[in-house]
This record gives sequence, structure tokens and C-alpha cells, in this order.
Amino acid sequence: MSQKNPLLEAFKQTKYHIPGHGKREIQVLKDALSSMDGNLESDVYGSGKIIEDFQEKMAKYLGKESSVFFPSGTMAQQIALRIWCDQKDLKRVAYHPLCHLEIHEEDGLKKLHGVEPVLLADKNRVITLEDVTSMNQEISCLLLELPQREIGGQLPEYDELVAISNYCRNKGIKLHLDGARLFEILPFYQKSAAEVCALFDSVYVSFYKGVGGVAGAILAGPKDFTEESKVWKRRHGGDLISLYPYIISADYYFDQRVHKMGQYYENAKELAAYYNQCSSVKTVPEIPISNMFHVYFDLPKEKIESILIGVYNDVGIGLSGYVKEIDKDTCFYEVSMGDHYAAIPKEKLEELFQKLGERINKDIVTVD
Amino acid sequence: MSQKNPLLEAFKQTKYHIPGHGKREIQVLKDALSSMDGNLESDVYGSGKIIEDFQEKMAKYLGKESSVFFPSGTMAQQIALRIWCDQKDLKRVAYHPLCHLEIHEEDGLKKLHGVEPVLLADKNRVITLEDVTSMNQEISCLLLELPQREIGGQLPEYDELVAISNYCRNKGIKLHLDGARLFEILPFYQKSAAEVCALFDSVYVSFYKGVGGVAGAILAGPKDFTEESKVWKRRHGGDLISLYPYIISADYYFDQRVHKMGQYYENAKELAAYYNQCSSVKTVPEIPISNMFHVYFDLPKEKIESILIGVYNDVGIGLSGYVKEIDKDTCFYEVSMGDHYAAIPKEKLEELFQKLGERINKDIVTVD
Repeated sequence: MSQKNPLLEAFKQTKYHIPGHGKREIQVLKDALSSMDGNLESDVYGSGKIIEDFQEKMAKYLGKESSVFFPSGTMAQQIALRIWCDQKDLKRVAYHPLCHLEIHEEDGLKKLHGVEPVLLADKNRVITLEDVTSMNQEISCLLLELPQREIGGQLPEYDELVAISNYCRNKGIKLHLDGARLFEILPFYQKSAAEVCALFDSVYVSFYKGVGGVAGAILAGPKDFTEESKVWKRRHGGDLISLYPYIISADYYFDQRVHKMGQYYENAKELAAYYNQCSSVKTVPEIPISNMFHVYFDLPKEKIESILIGVYNDVGIGLSGYVKEIDKDTCFYEVSMGDHYAAIPKEKLEELFQKLGERINKDIVTVD
Repeated sequence: MSQKNPLLEAFKQTKYHIPGHGKREIQVLKDALSSMDGNLESDVYGSGKIIEDFQEKMAKYLGKESSVFFPSGTMAQQIALRIWCDQKDLKRVAYHPLCHLEIHEEDGLKKLHGVEPVLLADKNRVITLEDVTSMNQEISCLLLELPQREIGGQLPEYDELVAISNYCRNKGIKLHLDGARLFEILPFYQKSAAEVCALFDSVYVSFYKGVGGVAGAILAGPKDFTEESKVWKRRHGGDLISLYPYIISADYYFDQRVHKMGQYYENAKELAAYYNQCSSVKTVPEIPISNMFHVYFDLPKEKIESILIGVYNDVGIGLSGYVKEIDKDTCFYEVSMGDHYAAIPKEKLEELFQKLGERINKDIVTVD
């Protein structure tokens, strides 16, 4: 698997990394466990203090009656949609064309649950109230992903969200929140998690994005909904005898970072501004609304890779370990801010983007 | 959840425990991690050194072309059966009436995969060649569980197993091994894991039974089968960004204990003989064939619970933390041997079973 990738290698060699909290290495788990008493009993098939306490804590934080810890969001969300479909006896839901369930789960929702999705909105923008009201098929559930990750982390206006929620309630459509990055958008909305979640019937949150845990997810909603989700969790093979490695790390890093989302958001805005000063470079959103955004280059992938490698080697700061081709002339990558950014000296950042801008300009001149 | 349970409390208070390796507490994971370099990179969605090395190691040990690490056996086995069904375009399999998929998985196989099982054999005995040959429905796959856990861990004769395997191969029926306790039966069969697995097309093994890891499973078979299983693993929500907490502990305890299965087996035979000396008590199997067996009491559950509590308090050795009622006059529990047993002084064991026998006798006399 570990083919030599010169950009990734150059990225790994840099002293500072712009995105993230740190490497995904086993020290992440060791740190979370280090302060824990070894005699603490494991959860056992969904029962026990470790799992029950955390579920209660997250239900409270999200303002929901009850919550269930899952090994993955993939499992949690398929199950959420299945339950709402069964309740209405209608196996149709609606979501964005770039929804995680549509593009990253090998069609699990269709192949395991027989649930058919209606794809709402153009893939380059978020779902609007009009998309929802003009739908001509009946659905059991609408899934909204906040922020919409695959388009750089965009968000509807909060009023639009409220309007969609009201419409769905009036029409008997359940509203499910894909909140993989819910914590990350709270500073922009200036709302508590519970306030946002109150607009939704069910909500999933993740612990290895902005929180930086090892893996795992929470699904929250009414008690009868979460109880039914436990049955499906067992059916999926997710009711493990021990989920504590994920629970302990989720809890540990949640406490450590959930209050830092405002800082990551400010950092993202600052960094995006640096990028947008360079010609042939733009960020989406132009002004980030969370800790994440996408960086687009009007340059061929190979070209920007070689420019990045040069800048990494010169300045000792890594911007990204990969670049994804869009077509032969353009490419992009995703940036998610975490603890790393704060450690980078400002003058080094200035130097980094000055050099990046210069080399891109030089390259454009050369090409022209 | 933690209702006061006097038997369990008395069991926990004893100095020595007969069954198992130790408590299911987070020290189990801490120990496995302690010798690992914190800089070791996480597996990422099924790729990376940690997961690939272990999959290769287990494929080799099981004598199969390839293997895949799963968070649970529930997930691994449903997927194995689904793949064999799809290959034959026939969604029917056969297994024992007390198969894990039939009684412990909330009908995941039926509800997620639409696979219907044929239940073979009387539930109190293992599947025979005749059960298989006299089946009057076509099936894609036969699942055999070795040993059959829910009846105390019984096994077919090895020759019978070979005959079933040959029959299935001739008839184009895939043979899948539920090897949750495969390691544990190798001393009885006097075969290597690879020799037993050679009789099967696919095999699942678990790492938290005799091995004593945290959780996790391996599914092994031909390369095209395991590759397809990875797609289903993603659909199930089991393709976690990081499975290393389970992989590291599985690997650690596998190395520590797989060679001790012979000792656990001998210990089980010795312990069963102690039990069988007491009146109104019998073990199934009478002579264990692995590290496990069931203990049946011709006494009401409440009666034997109070006898056990007395003996635990007197001798300081715990036999079981629970008793399961069968009917108002009989009850049972399961015993699985591990590292604990070897630490118990022989004279204490003698004392334990002498007192147990005496109190049961006294109780029988009193009742009569």
C-alpha cells in the first residue's frame, strides 16, 4: 500500500503541519488511556458505566432524550434512516448528491436496507427550502449535512435551516442531521449544539474529525428511536463486546477540544485569506464558516505538487499531504484546522505564502 | 444496569476465579499497548502496516490465501454467507438451530441480507453427515460451528467433518467455519488450524474468547472472497478509520495464549471431573473437548445460587458469576478456562468441591 508519494513524503518531513491535530498514530489512544484507572470495567455489549455515562453526557450536550454510541457514522446513519423509513412504512429518503451515504458507503443504504434516496439540489451548493418544497416524491426522512463537507464545508443560513425544519415537521417528514462536523460550525451559527439539534429529529456526530479521537460516533434522538437503533446496531455487527477504546478517546478529546472550535474557525479564516492572496488559487468557501475549506488551483496537479514540495523543503511547513486532480488543468485539496496551526510562527507563515505565491507566478509566466 | 446481584457480588469478592483470564477491564488494552511504539501509524480504512501485517499473519496461520480484520464476528459471518449466496444466486444457507446468527444477532442475516436459513439437526447435538445429505432444500452454504458453543462446546468426530466437507465440495455447497473457538479445539483434534481450515471455503475466528483480546475477528478465504468482504464491511459500517485498538490487542494476546490452548483443555477436563463427582451435577460434554463446558444442576436456580455464595465465601474461589434457569428444578452455567485456573492451589480446589458436594447433599436431604 505505501507506494512512495513524493508530496506526502515531503509533507511528512516538514517541521510544522498546517492542518489537523497531529499524526494518526497509536499515541493518540495511549494518551487518552494514560489517565484512566486500569481497573475500570469494560462496557459489555452496550451496557456498563463507560458507555452509559458517555451516552448520557452526549444526549445532554445535544439536547436529545437519549443517545447511543456506534463504532461508525456509516452504521449510525443508515440505521437512523432505516428506522424513520420503517416508522412511515416508506423506504425513500432525500439527501444531497454528495452525501456520505451516496458516495462513500458502497451503497450500504440501498443494498442492506433497500432504502432509495432522492438526490436534492445541485451538487455544488447546499440544499435550500425550495429544493425541499418542490420535491415531487414523498419521503420518510430528509438528511441535512452541516456543513456540507464535499463542497468545502458550506452551510445554509440559519433562518433557512429553521424554515426547512418547520416545513418538514408540518409535512410529517423526519429531519436527520449528519453532524459529522457539527461541533465545528457552532461558532459560526453562534448557537449551542442543543439549539441546532432541536431543529432535527435525530442527529449523528463524529469524534475523529475536529475532536480528533480514534473513531466512533453518537446517534441521538427520542428514547424509542435510540432503543430501536440498538437492535439494528446488533444486526449490523456493531454491538461489540467492548467499544471502550473508542469511547474513552472520544470523551477525552471531546473535553479537550470542543471549546476550541472557535479558535479553529478563526484560524481557518486567516489561512484561507493567505491562500486567496495567491494568484490561480481560491478557497471554497472564500471565507470559511468552520474549521474546514477546500483549496482550488488553476494549475495541473503535477505542477502544484512540485511547487508544494519545493516550498515545504524551503520553509519547513507542510500545507497538505496530497493534491486531487479535477481535470488536467485544475486540482484541489481539503484543509481541516486543528491544534497544529497555533504552533506555527507568524513570520514562517508569511514566508510560506510569499514563496508559494512567487512560485505559482513564476510558473504561470513560464507556462505563458 | 448494575442491579445488585448477590451471586455476582460474591464471585467478585473471591480471591481466585476458576474461569477466564482476568477481568474485562481497560488494563487489558493498556497492557497490549504498553510495549508498542507510540509513533506507530494507525491503520486507515483497512490499509496500513498494522492491519495488513496482522491479516497476512492470520491468513498464513489459517492456511488461507487472504484474510480481513473485522470489528465483530457478527459482521464477518453475515457477510461471508451473503457472498457465497450471491455467488450461487441463491439466498439460502444451512446451520445449527443454536447458531450465533440464529439466536444472538436479532435476525441480521434475514433483515439485512434477506438470507433464509435451514436449521439442521436437533438442537441438543451437533450436525452430522446424514443431516446434510438428507436436506431436501438446495443451499449455497453450510455453516459449521466448531465447537458448538450453546451445547457446551461439542464437536463432530474429525472423520465426520472430512466426510461433510467432501460431500459439500461434490455438491457445490460452500462450507463456512464459525471458528469463534477454533484455537481452543486444536489440541483435541490434534490438527493445525490450517489442516482444519483446509476443509472449509471460508473461516471466521475470534480474538476475545480463548485468546482474551478486547474484540475483533478475522475472516479468511480466497482472495476474491476477502476482497468482496471488504466492500460489504464498508456497507455494514465496519470499515473504521482505525481498528488498531482491536488489532493490537488481538495480536498481543494471540501470541501470548494460542500455544496455551492445550493447557486450558487439560484444565477443563480436570475441572469437569471435579464437578461430575458431585451429586445432582453433570457437565456437558462429560469430558470436555476444548477449554469450555456447561455445568448442569438438578436443583432450582435460587438453591444453587445460595449454595455457591456460601462456598465462595468459605473457600475464596469463584466458580461462576451467574446461574441460568432452565426450568424451576434445573439450571446451568458455562465455564471457559483461561489463565486463571493454573494459579489456584490444588488443596483449595479439593476443599471447594468437597464443600460444594456436601452442601448439595445436605440440601437434597433437607428437601427430601
